[in-house]
Amino acid sequence: MAATIYPDYPPALTSDQSGYLLSNLKDWSILNGLAVRPSPAFVSREIDPSGSLAVTAPLTLFPSLFPRVCFDEARAIQTGYNELYAAIAGDETWLKEIVEEIAQVDEFIAKLWQVHLAVKREGYTQDLSLGLFRSDYMVHRDPLNSAAEPQIRQVEFNTIASSFGGLAAKVSALHRHLLQIQAFPPTQLDLITANNLPDNLSVQSLSRGLATAHKAYGNCVSEPNRPLCILFIVQSPENNIFDQHALSNELWTNHGIPTFRVAYGNILRHTSVAHSFPTRPLIYSPPNLPSSYEVTTCYFRAGYSPAEYPDDTAWSARLHLERSAAIKCPSILTHLAGSKKIQQILATPSSTYLERFLARSRAISDTTAVASRIRATFAAMYPLDSSPAGRHAASLATSPHESAAYVLKPQREGGGNNIYGTKIPAFLKSLGDDELKWKGYVLMELIEPPSLRNTIFRNGEVKSGEVIGELGVYGVCLWRNGKDKHKDKVEILENFEAGHLLRTKGRESEEGGVAAGFGSVDSVCLIEI
Amino acid sequence: MAATIYPDYPPALTSDQSGYLLSNLKDWSILNGLAVRPSPAFVSREIDPSGSLAVTAPLTLFPSLFPRVCFDEARAIQTGYNELYAAIAGDETWLKEIVEEIAQVDEFIAKLWQVHLAVKREGYTQDLSLGLFRSDYMVHRDPLNSAAEPQIRQVEFNTIASSFGGLAAKVSALHRHLLQIQAFPPTQLDLITANNLPDNLSVQSLSRGLATAHKAYGNCVSEPNRPLCILFIVQSPENNIFDQHALSNELWTNHGIPTFRVAYGNILRHTSVAHSFPTRPLIYSPPNLPSSYEVTTCYFRAGYSPAEYPDDTAWSARLHLERSAAIKCPSILTHLAGSKKIQQILATPSSTYLERFLARSRAISDTTAVASRIRATFAAMYPLDSSPAGRHAASLATSPHESAAYVLKPQREGGGNNIYGTKIPAFLKSLGDDELKWKGYVLMELIEPPSLRNTIFRNGEVKSGEVIGELGVYGVCLWRNGKDKHKDKVEILENFEAGHLLRTKGRESEEGGVAAGFGSVDSVCLIEI
Repeated sequence: MAATIYPDYPPALTSDQSGYLLSNLKDWSILNGLAVRPSPAFVSREIDPSGSLAVTAPLTLFPSLFPRVCFDEARAIQTGYNELYAAIAGDETWLKEIVEEIAQVDEFIAKLWQVHLAVKREGYTQDLSLGLFRSDYMVHRDPLNSAAEPQIRQVEFNTIASSFGGLAAKVSALHRHLLQIQAFPPTQLDLITANNLPDNLSVQSLSRGLATAHKAYGNCVSEPNRPLCILFIVQSPENNIFDQHALSNELWTNHGIPTFRVAYGNILRHTSVAHSFPTRPLIYSPPNLPSSYEVTTCYFRAGYSPAEYPDDTAWSARLHLERSAAIKCPSILTHLAGSKKIQQILATPSSTYLERFLARSRAISDTTAVASRIRATFAAMYPLDSSPAGRHAASLATSPHESAAYVLKPQREGGGNNIYGTKIPAFLKSLGDDELKWKGYVLMELIEPPSLRNTIFRNGEVKSGEVIGELGVYGVCLWRNGKDKHKDKVEILENFEAGHLLRTKGRESEEGGVAAGFGSVDSVCLIEI
Repeated sequence: MAATIYPDYPPALTSDQSGYLLSNLKDWSILNGLAVRPSPAFVSREIDPSGSLAVTAPLTLFPSLFPRVCFDEARAIQTGYNELYAAIAGDETWLKEIVEEIAQVDEFIAKLWQVHLAVKREGYTQDLSLGLFRSDYMVHRDPLNSAAEPQIRQVEFNTIASSFGGLAAKVSALHRHLLQIQAFPPTQLDLITANNLPDNLSVQSLSRGLATAHKAYGNCVSEPNRPLCILFIVQSPENNIFDQHALSNELWTNHGIPTFRVAYGNILRHTSVAHSFPTRPLIYSPPNLPSSYEVTTCYFRAGYSPAEYPDDTAWSARLHLERSAAIKCPSILTHLAGSKKIQQILATPSSTYLERFLARSRAISDTTAVASRIRATFAAMYPLDSSPAGRHAASLATSPHESAAYVLKPQREGGGNNIYGTKIPAFLKSLGDDELKWKGYVLMELIEPPSLRNTIFRNGEVKSGEVIGELGVYGVCLWRNGKDKHKDKVEILENFEAGHLLRTKGRESEEGGVAAGFGSVDSVCLIEI
């Protein structure tokens, strides 16, 4: 795409231009909290034992070119995606089948399910669920038809701890600022214009989502009457802390809502469930204060990775929160709805689950049209099992020729690396004919993102070269789970698109260029294509 | 004061309270650009060659107690001070006498004067002057009368490069935020309340001052028609850069005014005077752009220290700006008006200059009342010369007993250290009877600031102990110099108080406490006293 149609993007810089751009980028980012704590590899603990240093977040110097048609479509279908995942999270019967199937290969999913079952036995006391979702896409161009319009292909749908919403809006603002101060040298094409740099309201929108849940919780139910708060469940240490503080700051400043942070490992120490009240309100007792708060909403920025559950205490903590009256963002079922297996089932060619789930929410009138637009964003995904789709997948994956168009991804959350293209047949051979091992993987159509160039500034290093961008669209959804005979219906209370994120990383290791995985936060410069 | 009346301030913290306060202080500061670049002593150049790290600015954990009566008075008289210094800068005849007297001992002042003379010969083309002033005070309590009300005593009046206005408002906001999130443990006295933490609009107000000058400049006079800009004349490198960017960011964002930064050493390289236009407009040619700007206002954040003028080129650069049509903040005469010698002349007991100068500005109706309030802020200052005041001073300064109440300060700008109290007689003896050497010093009444305690966070280190606070009040003044027979009149176009700053530093070296000079930015917690 860009490398062919816009080969001169981004424009080359003279040393004066580069100095001006970089110094303004470095200063503006710190002035506006577009920062991270430096990694220990960059600044050792001995130099900064109190952890008071910060550094410009990894950023691109230029906004990356992105087809407007793709950007608009990704944003337009976000509310449909929100409803889809709310409906999936609401269908316990269906989730049970899937979880039971993958429980054999994925202990993490199995344990999450057990948490749900335990709360179910006792009875859920909170029927509201909040999703702060992010749907991630790459631009795909049919490799066999270069005249075809670019399309978006979903990489994954995040239902827990979707990050970078606090920084994404600031990167968009940074690139607009750099445009305003003429840090981008004028070029003949004039691609970087205010019109092509869309607003990004991720900070306000995600915070509004949390504030909406906070209000929907209602009044304090415990006694004595306590103030209400939102609890951020976080990792510790957390280098990406300013991303999270952008939201808590907004909640304090513009919504007047108290927020606190609790490290995952401290949940049981600092929170309790008030058992004398039938709804089981969650009480947070700040270690620094004599008073306590009732928690309206638990916002998980931790707890998504198996490594965070080293022992039973970690699982007890999750159960403890799940059975409380606090609105969870996300609930266990919503967390499970985001598993790769679900994505694969939805994206399996010939599946009709999309229509089935979208029909569950009353807000969408034209289910078929929405389902078809969502389906158009799927890269085909196949299980490696004994189903017809699975047998077809096995034939593709073991073919030295056809495997080139696919990637093999582990089912297990947070488990291992992807296997690409023609390396797949040999890898599958190494698994032998152990059916269980094969079922641990999903075969996915490779997305062919266009060739782009950009310059990434990360930890003080500047690297230019070929990059790949991944667009994330945030979505906020607050819903009420159905009850009794309507128990697989969900009532959508709030549903909106909530800003976007472009992440850009080095395409592959190049001598002197952007190393693969040299990731950064970026913004879009929209192009007509 | 506080140590006696409020001995329990600031409150002691448990380790949980301290952890909560510090982590929020560290995070909020970076989120909001309340930062500095770390010094090379903290982070070496090898670790961060691109200079992309930042650190929380040196801050106090708590707002320091400050008598409300002193705070209110300091703010109330700022517009009077603004007019006073505008009038002094407008009285070339008077300045000439003083400069000629101190030229023998202060080459820097002499050279600044020569720049003025050179422009005067050619003819000034800009009759507007902008002052972004800061008047610094300490609280003084009469050591012989502990029942007396605390009063403010002026330490100095800054007419050039008054710094920290960009950070001061943010420290006030930080302490308010820490109050809001209950990071200050509740105490019986309840001193830290929203009511006692005044608003601080230094960022908006100082930026508004620059914007006012920018507008008052009028239209572009050079051809071809150029966009207008404000030029920040800066030091390089500058660790306190976010202080300056807070203002430039406000000018861009809320006034739509382009600002650029030019290192003092690059003035002649990047600016030129368009000589074909009689008013000599100043043209700035950004090295990164093909286009150029006409400069409405030169805002000096450099050029105030003799060390910045190592050679004739540096003086040529100052002359170059001074003779241009840009409004200078400050002009050479305004810069000179801020010299210590002027402060000393105003504060010499029995001087009537205050009334004389205040009568020059038409805005003040009751000159006598304003003069008397301003005079009440002076610590007595004496020349060490052959005048009656000088002879009196010599007798005080050489007395082993009476010298205890004084400090000896060098006249020369940026020259050497102060000599305190009973060390003065021996020091003067070491000068011999060289009259010129004696004239290089001013004898000033020692200000007796109250004992306070606070905790300072600086470069990741936390130190608690006795501290001294210095309140700065910012003032903005835009005036038009008189012409012809009104040439010593000034017409005040804009005059307002522009926020405040509390700087707090260790009172003296204490084992494990706040080391002397361990300075920080603070905010006031007002107390009735």
